[in-house]
Amino acid sequence: VKVSALGEFGLIDLLQKMIAEAGVDRAGDEKPIIGIGDDAAAWRCEGVQLATVDTMTEDIHFSLDTITWKELGWKSLAINLSDIAAMGGTPRYALIAIALPDDTRVEAVRLIYEGMIELARESGVVLVGGNVTRAAVISLTIMVLGNATGDKLLRRSAARPDDVIVITGYPGGAAGGLEMLTKKLKLKNEDAAYLRRAFLHPQPRLVEGQILVKHGIAAAIDTSDGLLADLGHICEASAVSARVEVGKVPLHEILRRNFKEKALEMALGGGEDYELIFTGPSRLIQQVKKELKCPVTVIGKITSEATGRIDLFDEAGQLVTAKSTGWAHF
Amino acid sequence: VKVSALGEFGLIDLLQKMIAEAGVDRAGDEKPIIGIGDDAAAWRCEGVQLATVDTMTEDIHFSLDTITWKELGWKSLAINLSDIAAMGGTPRYALIAIALPDDTRVEAVRLIYEGMIELARESGVVLVGGNVTRAAVISLTIMVLGNATGDKLLRRSAARPDDVIVITGYPGGAAGGLEMLTKKLKLKNEDAAYLRRAFLHPQPRLVEGQILVKHGIAAAIDTSDGLLADLGHICEASAVSARVEVGKVPLHEILRRNFKEKALEMALGGGEDYELIFTGPSRLIQQVKKELKCPVTVIGKITSEATGRIDLFDEAGQLVTAKSTGWAHF
Repeated sequence: VKVSALGEFGLIDLLQKMIAEAGVDRAGDEKPIIGIGDDAAAWRCEGVQLATVDTMTEDIHFSLDTITWKELGWKSLAINLSDIAAMGGTPRYALIAIALPDDTRVEAVRLIYEGMIELARESGVVLVGGNVTRAAVISLTIMVLGNATGDKLLRRSAARPDDVIVITGYPGGAAGGLEMLTKKLKLKNEDAAYLRRAFLHPQPRLVEGQILVKHGIAAAIDTSDGLLADLGHICEASAVSARVEVGKVPLHEILRRNFKEKALEMALGGGEDYELIFTGPSRLIQQVKKELKCPVTVIGKITSEATGRIDLFDEAGQLVTAKSTGWAHF
Repeated sequence: VKVSALGEFGLIDLLQKMIAEAGVDRAGDEKPIIGIGDDAAAWRCEGVQLATVDTMTEDIHFSLDTITWKELGWKSLAINLSDIAAMGGTPRYALIAIALPDDTRVEAVRLIYEGMIELARESGVVLVGGNVTRAAVISLTIMVLGNATGDKLLRRSAARPDDVIVITGYPGGAAGGLEMLTKKLKLKNEDAAYLRRAFLHPQPRLVEGQILVKHGIAAAIDTSDGLLADLGHICEASAVSARVEVGKVPLHEILRRNFKEKALEMALGGGEDYELIFTGPSRLIQQVKKELKCPVTVIGKITSEATGRIDLFDEAGQLVTAKSTGWAHF
């Protein structure tokens, strides 16, 4: 059955039922005052509200040749939750604007929502509304609202000279997954599963972001554009520069063994990992590292030069150049 | 200059500057804690928060043959503010997700934002964030956050039997404008200006919505799908039915003289007027009518039948049928 047969309102009804049955029309006992089905959603709020929006469009951000419907739903929400994580907050509500060709199968839409619902449930996010529209290609624009942790925030602009630069997890996994899928590389099952997951099923670092803000870390960003590009955003917003020791950039064994010398380039320049980069005074970083359950690696230092430049150094202390510094949309 | 030459971050910088220069990065003295340029926007909030999202996509919701860039910006925001109006609330913050072909002229994007900024300024809305992405056609997905008036809300589900049905303004103007533009009708200047404005430059009924809620009106919707379709949404959500006297539906003189007997059909079935339909006990409606500065017309009554049906009656009390009942997306 195609969405054109169901009609706009039939489709909205179906999605509303899926959301209610999965219990993501509420968070435990807490229901929004008004969820899906009115002109706007409504809920009671206090404290510092966070808001972010991100879009995934077919053939720009994803290819239906490589992503499954469920992964598409998961990732569309995950990239927004990652923005809330990068503020140290807790996501609460999401609005989903979906655009679909009218010959899209209803089953595909159902699977997209299954992926979203799975992550919404894991993260306590309530789906309160959205919009359904026709378009030539599939596109998902999701807005997530959340709360800051104790009114404190992680900001791009809060890095200070002599701060240590830290990254969670292993950068480059998403770039490796993209390369594997687009070049149809045949890798070992375990390796293929890891890289696919890194690229198409990212896990937003929500708990980690909240731990950072609770411990007094002030500067962070998530790696959506790539390690160097996103560290660059921090440097520009903070009017500082950075020294990165490329030998310290953590390379996952799977990335390294499948992509050899290209692994470092992927780790520095590849986007869409949705890890956190954060900075802070060395003593504070030592405390925070003990609390975080994920891999955490110091990769460099913030310097006082106001140019927003990133200098890369090899193990011998020699200046090197990065081949790629992330990607921009135009 | 095309957006591809400016680059994603260059474009974001340009838009951020436009927004700051126009002063819509704040509302008077009140600045958000974090506006454009971090992973998420942040502001302090209390009370009942409202949230809505709507999309306008090229060749689905608008044609570049007929809409100007500025009108596109205005209307994209207006349709969202109208949803806040339909809840009786005050809009506060907007996030703009814009998708553009990479050969779009920067000047076009600037004009789109001028249209949005003009309406944002008139309505006290702060532009706090967004997303820029590439796409095959232009599309704007806007999310608006607002506050309820005194914690009270207008809902689709609050219509009660014997409520009087009321509409603001003159329905059908947008349908008239669409017909004029797509059929390239040559009308008198004054008529053409009225119809174009009705279709491409709608004025969200924010003040009116707030007056309704302050006076105890509980049920409302905005007419985006069309008078009958949207009244139908109220009836379904409220589990009631409606009797509409077609002779009472207010037809603007300009609609009537240019479209003759088709004018009524446009008023009943045409979408995108962004007027308010509301219902309430007759005595309350009389009080509210005195407060509202815009045209307000009683067009029928809510009945107790739970089927969500709308019956149309002519002046002789005879049941008639509507040719069109609004439009759905698929």
